[in-house]
Amino acid sequence: MTRPTTHVDVLIVGAGPAGLMLANWMSRCGIKTRVVDKRGTKVFNGQADGLQCRTLEIFDSFDFAQRVWQESNHMLEICLWNPDKNGTLRRSDRIADTIPGISRFQQVVLHQGRIERFFLDSIKAHSDITVERGVLPTSFNFNESKARDPIDYPITVTLKTLSDEEATPQQQQKSANGTVVDDGLFRSNLAPDDTEDMIRSAEQSGRANQTEEVKAKFMVGCDGAHSWVRKQLGFSLEGDSTDYIWGVLDIVPITDFPDIRMRCAIHSANAGSVMVIPRENKLVRLYIQLQSTEVGGGKADRSSITPDMILKSAQRILHPYTLTYEYCDWWTAYQIGQRVGSNFSLQERVFLAGDAVHTHSPKAGQGMNVSMQDTYNLGWKLAHVVKGYSDLSILKTYQSERRRIAQDLIAFDYRFSRLFSGRPSMDVMDEEGISMEEFKTAFQKGNMFASGIAVDYGASLIVAKPGSSAEQGDGTDVSSQSKHRVLSKQHLARTIPVGQRIPSHKVLNQADARPWHLQELLKSNGRWRVIVFPGSLTNQTNTTRYQRLGEKLSNANSFLRRYTPSNLSIDGVIEVLTVHVGPRWDVELLDLPDIFHPYHEKMGWDYWKVFADDQSYHEGHGRVYENYGIDPRQGASVIVRPDQYVSWVGEVDDYEEMEGFFSSFMKVQDGVQQQTDGPVVSTL
Amino acid sequence: MTRPTTHVDVLIVGAGPAGLMLANWMSRCGIKTRVVDKRGTKVFNGQADGLQCRTLEIFDSFDFAQRVWQESNHMLEICLWNPDKNGTLRRSDRIADTIPGISRFQQVVLHQGRIERFFLDSIKAHSDITVERGVLPTSFNFNESKARDPIDYPITVTLKTLSDEEATPQQQQKSANGTVVDDGLFRSNLAPDDTEDMIRSAEQSGRANQTEEVKAKFMVGCDGAHSWVRKQLGFSLEGDSTDYIWGVLDIVPITDFPDIRMRCAIHSANAGSVMVIPRENKLVRLYIQLQSTEVGGGKADRSSITPDMILKSAQRILHPYTLTYEYCDWWTAYQIGQRVGSNFSLQERVFLAGDAVHTHSPKAGQGMNVSMQDTYNLGWKLAHVVKGYSDLSILKTYQSERRRIAQDLIAFDYRFSRLFSGRPSMDVMDEEGISMEEFKTAFQKGNMFASGIAVDYGASLIVAKPGSSAEQGDGTDVSSQSKHRVLSKQHLARTIPVGQRIPSHKVLNQADARPWHLQELLKSNGRWRVIVFPGSLTNQTNTTRYQRLGEKLSNANSFLRRYTPSNLSIDGVIEVLTVHVGPRWDVELLDLPDIFHPYHEKMGWDYWKVFADDQSYHEGHGRVYENYGIDPRQGASVIVRPDQYVSWVGEVDDYEEMEGFFSSFMKVQDGVQQQTDGPVVSTL
Repeated sequence: MTRPTTHVDVLIVGAGPAGLMLANWMSRCGIKTRVVDKRGTKVFNGQADGLQCRTLEIFDSFDFAQRVWQESNHMLEICLWNPDKNGTLRRSDRIADTIPGISRFQQVVLHQGRIERFFLDSIKAHSDITVERGVLPTSFNFNESKARDPIDYPITVTLKTLSDEEATPQQQQKSANGTVVDDGLFRSNLAPDDTEDMIRSAEQSGRANQTEEVKAKFMVGCDGAHSWVRKQLGFSLEGDSTDYIWGVLDIVPITDFPDIRMRCAIHSANAGSVMVIPRENKLVRLYIQLQSTEVGGGKADRSSITPDMILKSAQRILHPYTLTYEYCDWWTAYQIGQRVGSNFSLQERVFLAGDAVHTHSPKAGQGMNVSMQDTYNLGWKLAHVVKGYSDLSILKTYQSERRRIAQDLIAFDYRFSRLFSGRPSMDVMDEEGISMEEFKTAFQKGNMFASGIAVDYGASLIVAKPGSSAEQGDGTDVSSQSKHRVLSKQHLARTIPVGQRIPSHKVLNQADARPWHLQELLKSNGRWRVIVFPGSLTNQTNTTRYQRLGEKLSNANSFLRRYTPSNLSIDGVIEVLTVHVGPRWDVELLDLPDIFHPYHEKMGWDYWKVFADDQSYHEGHGRVYENYGIDPRQGASVIVRPDQYVSWVGEVDDYEEMEGFFSSFMKVQDGVQQQTDGPVVSTL
Repeated sequence: MTRPTTHVDVLIVGAGPAGLMLANWMSRCGIKTRVVDKRGTKVFNGQADGLQCRTLEIFDSFDFAQRVWQESNHMLEICLWNPDKNGTLRRSDRIADTIPGISRFQQVVLHQGRIERFFLDSIKAHSDITVERGVLPTSFNFNESKARDPIDYPITVTLKTLSDEEATPQQQQKSANGTVVDDGLFRSNLAPDDTEDMIRSAEQSGRANQTEEVKAKFMVGCDGAHSWVRKQLGFSLEGDSTDYIWGVLDIVPITDFPDIRMRCAIHSANAGSVMVIPRENKLVRLYIQLQSTEVGGGKADRSSITPDMILKSAQRILHPYTLTYEYCDWWTAYQIGQRVGSNFSLQERVFLAGDAVHTHSPKAGQGMNVSMQDTYNLGWKLAHVVKGYSDLSILKTYQSERRRIAQDLIAFDYRFSRLFSGRPSMDVMDEEGISMEEFKTAFQKGNMFASGIAVDYGASLIVAKPGSSAEQGDGTDVSSQSKHRVLSKQHLARTIPVGQRIPSHKVLNQADARPWHLQELLKSNGRWRVIVFPGSLTNQTNTTRYQRLGEKLSNANSFLRRYTPSNLSIDGVIEVLTVHVGPRWDVELLDLPDIFHPYHEKMGWDYWKVFADDQSYHEGHGRVYENYGIDPRQGASVIVRPDQYVSWVGEVDDYEEMEGFFSSFMKVQDGVQQQTDGPVVSTL
């Protein structure tokens, strides 16, 4: 039985963290989306678990960071353990896990299944998008002639519905104490990909005739290291595997090792290394180096690895401390491979994200984060193109920005894995050994990278900074095609680096005195923001400049109006926020130009757009101007992307540069703002 | 059709906030409970909305404060408006809404329906207790001879299931702009009680024969101002009504009044008073004084009050500012009555709580809070008696503690309402007018009371402080009957006041460096806590004292073991926590006596019982010893009730006084701890 062809804006293949992040964006932007996954159920245990502070900031922009914060284990301190002169294991160092001050969140650990649950709840609360499980794409066709028209459907995919048995992977094996425990081998690179088997099985079964043809404007492959989508496109992963084999145990440990509730990097003298990752619910994850003799050397045979073998390795490494367990939640084994995709998209209509385009060691806790941030980067761009707000050209920045990140990640991981897998040097003459000092330094430097905060997107049509876009990205040319290249005046806000996510400090709502982290105002709802920092509004020069900007923004032909469809409120595509400095009590909201707190005939004034950099009653003083390096006498304006990355920094009232920036990629909408249901902005 | 008689431990009548708080406790303590409510649905809008910071602390102890914090409107600043010398309205003062420093939460506003939702989710997550709606108790019998036996069932109640129509109150009326808006008159004291009508209607309908007999050990009437349970007991509410009539509008305001997003107390020269309570979702609640001429004077006629009449009053009071609205969410009108129940219980088997025993003005935002705190006080006591941990005698403290609070509340409300409803005095000679200075002072003083933090329970068998229990409570004698009266040494922890909830400061987990607010460790799970503050554990005197306490607690006949059933873990009834002072790095958890971090043969050591007063990586230094007034050279031990109120402060190792305290009301359980599934504590 073949169902009729359906049309969607975006087809997402794969409902792991990368696919769900994308679906979540689509739910917020109202994009017609389908999500399919060949597996019959979501992940319940094991898998990736480390969450960067940047990832929590992103979750907070979707309103569910608190659920993660509450359920997760928080990582505060890293302890380094290695042999002393006598070869006895001892704690040599303690390091802050997250570098203090870089984010309002810290790194936490919570297993992937819970993250997927929060995504699913969030998607459900904002849309009717559902995840179709046990559904497998089996054929792909791309009509190149339709690729340059954003409203056409160049992609045709056949979907097959699997039976329950087909969609449920076999993933059980007996644990050390004889109980049956789920293992992760089915997804590790030590096990063969089972997609082909699943397709064959589906074809032979009675339900194999449940197929459907889907036509899509865009498709995104979030379908993991064995990506079916990637294979259709004929793109390869470039890189290599190492010989190191690692085992993973998720257990409730019974041990006298003192730092079992800290993240620990443990180098034994001769028995290999262990990384300790304490988790939620009394669990601890151990990454345990397996001696190559144990697993036969070279490419390992899956069947030869058991939890008991992994435990015995851990016991040797941790000696003289003891370690055992009664409860094992999950286990697996893997071989490190560091690879990056050659291409991240086919003509900006089909995209690849997550494990489909980068694989690496799990120990730095990067996997789930980088994957989700791939589609966090892509989602709003897709939505703006589908809605007709933006030109197709912005989609090129996905590969430029994210392939570069993947390359950096792989380089980091290569170096870190080598240092972690190596034997500690006995003395300075021991050249084959790893210097523990070098390891510590690398660990500390890696911490900034691993936080996700350091991400710095290169120059492009949506990042107005100097230099070559090709050099700063992955080589793709994503520079603006306008005659006039808009550039930032970074010195006006020295610590709001263009290309990076905007740092967050606390501001007070002018109307109700509530303190907010600035980032909390930048919800992921698809809106661009212009944040105006006019300085002190008791100063006449500042007030004049602020009013001048207000007049231009209010103009019937302003970029605010030109790029906003008439059926949306004036802040529907670009939202203007104000942060003035000085006593909140010195300013009355209703005295400010209307455009900065727009009036709606049914809802009254907007009380949620103007903020003060001032002392709060209960949460201190954000010192926003000081922390952002903004001179209160001069001020600044900042354009922030819908994903919180900074596009432009300039003069408070440099309306022309703002307009120049937006006009290089945004599309004029249906004429001047109508006085319908939308808010009405009176002129000054 | 009559169903067979069922037996329950606790029968809760009424599923408003008081009833749900109690059900929530029961869900955490595993008590066999039924909850019935005559209404067919929960509240969806309107009703009470203000939440004290103490209430948020309590919600946090049940793990759902964050949901409230996220959805609610936060109240930061109060603005006082009154006439200047020319009679023109102007802002005269700004006051912090919550007194800075008294809690980690601040007062917020969120409507009752959401609070009930969070309770229901929380109850469901922890038990199979459900709320049976449209179920009405129709007869009550009390067998006095069974009242002194805690495991007997002195209460017999007949329950009737209502039809959908019977259970749905009529609550709609047209609003000012012609749309239909739910009103709250059906619950206000301007409308007659409808219970009798519902019973009659149920008897006449076809489903009236769906009755059931329930036998209960305990019953709690949380059934509102017209309480059916109270009527069965023959208890009265004592107090009186005032002549003031107030209207309430929940609207999205369209106004040029500058402080519409602040809590405002507005006294007009001659047109009455308005209180502004900004709410979630752009809503604002206005409490508006109605001129008695408008509503015919004296006891008001419900049918004469309309939203339009209320709005017109508001407009007169707010002049020269304008106010109107397009959207009204809810409205009601009420007359202030201040009354307190004569008795809060029948022989400590049937209890009354919430509006069933106190009614007052809603404007101070106290109603829902005091009601929920009634049953928060009662819940753990009931659970401990039902489980056989405690003697019936602790139940007397419910009336002693909560009736006194209700009396204080009514006195506060009487004074506050008079000041708020009165006309501002024109000058010092105007004796009939209210001095605005006096109003401001009363407002500020009232703020501490209104926070819920000031609650200070009197001396009793569960609060070891000097003085007369009768004088410090409502007159009931709840003193300990032991020969030796245990008294606190308050000077050892000067700012952990015995009788009040323990203040909260941040401590660091010894095992993983995570900062926690101390209160976050005191979850409402029914456990007593002994919190040991041994001082610095690098000091030999302190260490010796701490070890001595450890030895006594570990003893096979210690009170920990005597009062804990053998099938529970050693921390199942009384949990011992440690907070030492000084560098966390100077102490190794596993060096401390085992009883302070008990060992479990399947789960290993307990890493969640020992904390340090030290600098955290990201959240500052809690300075716990300093903030609690504890001398680090001397230390202290503190006993905290399951509801976070402080019972006793004494010497670190004063095991004998601790034992004396618990032995006056706790019951010896089934012998010495067995080495079953529970954790095993090795001796020192």
